[in-house]
Amino acid sequence: MYSLKITSQSSADGMVERDFTVGGVPGVLWSPGSGADRAPLVLMGHGGGNHKKHPAMAGRAQRLVAGCGFHVAVIDAPGHGDRPRSAHDEAEIAELFRARAAGEPEGPIVVRYNAYLAELALPEWQAALDALQELPEIGADGPVGYFGLNMGTAIGLPFVAVEPRITAAVFGQHWPDVLAEKAEQITIPVEYDMQWDDEHIPREAGLALFDAFASTEKTLHANAGRHKELPRFEADSAVRFFARHLR
Amino acid sequence: MYSLKITSQSSADGMVERDFTVGGVPGVLWSPGSGADRAPLVLMGHGGGNHKKHPAMAGRAQRLVAGCGFHVAVIDAPGHGDRPRSAHDEAEIAELFRARAAGEPEGPIVVRYNAYLAELALPEWQAALDALQELPEIGADGPVGYFGLNMGTAIGLPFVAVEPRITAAVFGQHWPDVLAEKAEQITIPVEYDMQWDDEHIPREAGLALFDAFASTEKTLHANAGRHKELPRFEADSAVRFFARHLR
Repeated sequence: MYSLKITSQSSADGMVERDFTVGGVPGVLWSPGSGADRAPLVLMGHGGGNHKKHPAMAGRAQRLVAGCGFHVAVIDAPGHGDRPRSAHDEAEIAELFRARAAGEPEGPIVVRYNAYLAELALPEWQAALDALQELPEIGADGPVGYFGLNMGTAIGLPFVAVEPRITAAVFGQHWPDVLAEKAEQITIPVEYDMQWDDEHIPREAGLALFDAFASTEKTLHANAGRHKELPRFEADSAVRFFARHLR
Repeated sequence: MYSLKITSQSSADGMVERDFTVGGVPGVLWSPGSGADRAPLVLMGHGGGNHKKHPAMAGRAQRLVAGCGFHVAVIDAPGHGDRPRSAHDEAEIAELFRARAAGEPEGPIVVRYNAYLAELALPEWQAALDALQELPEIGADGPVGYFGLNMGTAIGLPFVAVEPRITAAVFGQHWPDVLAEKAEQITIPVEYDMQWDDEHIPREAGLALFDAFASTEKTLHANAGRHKELPRFEADSAVRFFARHLR
């Protein structure tokens, strides 16, 4: 088992920010500023081409930490953020950009590349959760949630499917091809976001992935608009979802 | 034009409750207890077999009045609450109960009967809104929303389709047969609730009605569960929707 190595610590906006590594994988832990009482933990997965401290991650963390008093942890996905890209990463990204420029569907490439990253990331997330739970302010038996859209769903959904410590999850905006059979193993409460007019993910594909979850408590939020137009208020909704289920 | 006749007034739980009639139609207006500043108005339509002061109406009003400082008005639908049932009402209700007891689909009867009630209710809602806007604490140019599920959608959706004073609406749980062509005329922000495992309304029917709205800003909330299992937190979501759009 890897332990958590804190590499730097700072404070801003009422949050304590600690950079860490677990087994060489870089991550960030955002925590409430006051006291060391135990609090729930939300693990967040970032989107493709982004990284652990992307403004979308920091913004959601702010809501969860300041608004709910939770801890929030993000690790860089393989080939993302502070981690090197392999020759395979470079080839897949080049292929994605080529398809986009040619006006070809990007789904097949994203599905295939994200499934590859998800396999690499699964043991990394398990090691990170093991190490985070060693911290006294988190603990081994506290509630844990997972929040990730796009690539954060492709990586997080297979992780949640095999990780009994996670008791509530927010996913969204991916294809069912690889993920539906993993979703069939998930029974915890789920909130799922999709865009009704997504130009990359067909409507039927989004509905099929939501349908696949075995959870008796699951909610689909489908908003009018294209792939990148997911409304800001869905982040607030996710925070309320975690407040309901992790407190 | 009919005027608003206040028939009684009381206060409880921080809300002022005024019973009224408009052109003989009984209604209730719930308002904030303090002051006479102008505030937005939410019109609510009750469900089939219920009435203007059903606990679901009073509960939603409490959230909108105490939580947002809004006014909330509900009128009894034709044949409901304090209004007499016609021979036609009695016959349709008997037919609905017969179909239920026989295990036959209730959709065709509900769709037909609710469309009949919606035609009667449309001028009643317009008269009620006219009269409510005469009150100085509401006014003729303030924001107005509409909130109604089930029969409250069957009656409210055709009303909203022709009523430019309403600028945001929450609907849900009905069939597209009669309503889809009205929804195509609606362009205001809409939140739409459906149950993913509704035993009365086929999933494809619920999705088709949501799809029909012409609104560029619309959100579908689909929850796992049967027709009557709509989660309580959807009422809170509707309140936040109105707070975003009417303030």
